[in-house]
Amino acid sequence: MSTSPAPCVAAIDIGGTKIAGGLVDPDGVLLHRIERPTKAKAPDPDEVFAAVAEVVAVLAEHEPWAGVTAVGVGSAGPVDIGLGTVSPVNIPAWRGFPVVARIRELPQVDGLPTVLGGDAVAMTAAEHWRGAARGYANAICLVVSTGVGAGLVLDGRVYPGPTGNAGHLGHITVDFEGEPCPCGSRGCLERVASGTAIASWALANGWRSPGGPDGAVDAAAVAESARAGDPVAVAAFDRAARALAAGIAATATLVELDVAVLGGGVLRAGELLLAPLRHHLTTYAALPFTQGLQVRAAELGTDAGLIGAAALALDPA
Amino acid sequence: MSTSPAPCVAAIDIGGTKIAGGLVDPDGVLLHRIERPTKAKAPDPDEVFAAVAEVVAVLAEHEPWAGVTAVGVGSAGPVDIGLGTVSPVNIPAWRGFPVVARIRELPQVDGLPTVLGGDAVAMTAAEHWRGAARGYANAICLVVSTGVGAGLVLDGRVYPGPTGNAGHLGHITVDFEGEPCPCGSRGCLERVASGTAIASWALANGWRSPGGPDGAVDAAAVAESARAGDPVAVAAFDRAARALAAGIAATATLVELDVAVLGGGVLRAGELLLAPLRHHLTTYAALPFTQGLQVRAAELGTDAGLIGAAALALDPA
Repeated sequence: MSTSPAPCVAAIDIGGTKIAGGLVDPDGVLLHRIERPTKAKAPDPDEVFAAVAEVVAVLAEHEPWAGVTAVGVGSAGPVDIGLGTVSPVNIPAWRGFPVVARIRELPQVDGLPTVLGGDAVAMTAAEHWRGAARGYANAICLVVSTGVGAGLVLDGRVYPGPTGNAGHLGHITVDFEGEPCPCGSRGCLERVASGTAIASWALANGWRSPGGPDGAVDAAAVAESARAGDPVAVAAFDRAARALAAGIAATATLVELDVAVLGGGVLRAGELLLAPLRHHLTTYAALPFTQGLQVRAAELGTDAGLIGAAALALDPA
Repeated sequence: MSTSPAPCVAAIDIGGTKIAGGLVDPDGVLLHRIERPTKAKAPDPDEVFAAVAEVVAVLAEHEPWAGVTAVGVGSAGPVDIGLGTVSPVNIPAWRGFPVVARIRELPQVDGLPTVLGGDAVAMTAAEHWRGAARGYANAICLVVSTGVGAGLVLDGRVYPGPTGNAGHLGHITVDFEGEPCPCGSRGCLERVASGTAIASWALANGWRSPGGPDGAVDAAAVAESARAGDPVAVAAFDRAARALAAGIAATATLVELDVAVLGGGVLRAGELLLAPLRHHLTTYAALPFTQGLQVRAAELGTDAGLIGAAALALDPA
C-alpha cells in the first residue's frame, strides 16, 4: 500500500550573488530552502549552471520531491520567457542562456513543466499570492535596492508581458531632460530612487557617513543619518520618494492600480521612505481614478523569490 | 415572408463640441453618420442629453436600425465604465452623469446592451480593429491635439482598466521636478507635447505666428514656420517629440509594446513630429525588449470615435 506524495513545486531563484532553491507546497509554504553561491564571474556558462544543477540535486534528496509537479524559476533579468532564456546583467557568461531547457534536461526534473519569470515578477507573484498585494486586482510590487525592479498585477493576475519584462519601473524616464542612464536612456527612475542613487546624491550634497571617513556609503548609512536629523539625509530620501511617487503614479495613470507594495533593502528605512512617498503621491497621483492607491510594505522578505517562482509555476499565466 | 435585418451596432461619440452618431456594420463600415452640437455650457444635464436622444432618434429612422444589437458609446473623460457614468471636463453639467442608463432607457434603444468607453480608448479600439494598430497584440494609440489622450491594447485586446481610464498618457510625469499641471500633478507629458504646449513654448522662445500679430497661435501655425525653416518652431516640435518618446518608452517599459499609433490634430504636422519621435525613441526605448517598437500614423481620422465605440460594443472586454 502506498499513498500519493503530496503535490508541491520546486522553486529556483537565480541572482548575481546566490542561487537558491526550495520546495513549496500548494499553500505557498516553503518546505526546504538551500542556496549556493553564484559563480557570477565564471567565463563558462556551464560553470554557472553547475550550481543550479547542484541545488536541484540536493532538493531532490528531500522526500517531498516525489510530489513535485512543476519547476518555477525566477531569475535576475533581462529574461525572455517566450524563449526560456536569461541574460542577467551581473552574470556576463549567461547571454541568452537557455535556462528552462537546461533545467528540464536535468535527470531529477526529467521534462517536468518549467516556468520562468524575472525576479521582480516573481516577487510580485509572491506578494500577490501570500503577501501585501493579496486580494488586490491591480498592483505594482517594487524591489528597491541597488536598483529598482518591479512587476505588475493586472485584472487579478500577474502580468509578465510577452517576454516577461513588464513592470521595469526602474527604467522609465521621470526626467526627460535628465542625466544619461547606463541603460542608454535618460532620467531613469533608478538614477534617482535606488539605494545607490540615494547615497550618491547625499554625498554630492555634503552628507558624510556617520561611520567616518571609512564608514559605509549606502542607503542604510544615509538612513542612520536621517534618523539622527541630518537634513541632507532626510532630503535624499525625500527626493527618492518624490521620483518613486512620480513613477508609481505614472503606472497607475497608465494601467489603473489599487496598491503599490515596496520591498528590497532600501525599505529597511521604513517610514523614512514610505511617509514621504505617501505624501508625494497626493501630488503625482492626481487624476480621480488614481487617488485611491494604497502604499504597503512587502511582507515576504528574502523568501519572496522562491515563493514567487513557485507561484509562477502553479499559474503560468 | 421576411428576412432578418443585417446586424449592426449603433455608435455614439460624445465630445465637448459635438455629439456624433452612426450605424456600424460587423465589418466596421460606417453606414450613417450624423452629428449635433454639444450644448457644453448648458447648466442642465438633461439639456446636454437631449442632443444624444436626438442623435439616437434620427439614427433609428434609418432602415438598418432594425438590425441594431448593441449600442457603443465613446465619451470625453473622465468616464467610469463600471458605473456607466461620465464627467467630461468640458461639459460641466455632467458630473457622474449616468449616460449608459439614460441611453438604455431611450424608447428606440429599449434596454439593448450599451457599452461605454473613454474617447481615447474608443479611438484605440478603432485603430486596432480597422486601422494602424491592426494585427498588433500590444499597442498604445495616442490622440495628440489640445491635450494628449491614449489607450492601450494588451495581449491582443483593448485594455480599458477597471474604470475605463487606462492609458492616460497625457498625465504621466516626464519631469518630476517640473511645472504644476492643472490636473494637480507636476511635469505632465501633456504640458510639453500637446498642440497647446507646442505653441506656448514656441511663443515663449521668440517664435511669431506667420500670420502676423493677428495670426493663429497654434500647432498648425508653428508647423507652418517649421516647414519654412524657423529653428524655434523646429525645436518646439523636437521638444514635444522628445517628451512623447519618453512617455511612449515608459509605457513600453512598463507593459511591453509592439507599436505606437499617433493621431489627432497635431499629427497634421506629419513627419515634423514623427521623424524626431522615432529618433528620440532610440534613446528612451533603450532596454532590449522595447527596441522593436514601431511608430505609425493613425488611419481612421475623424471616424475613429464612432468606429471605436462600435468596436467596444462588439467586444465589451
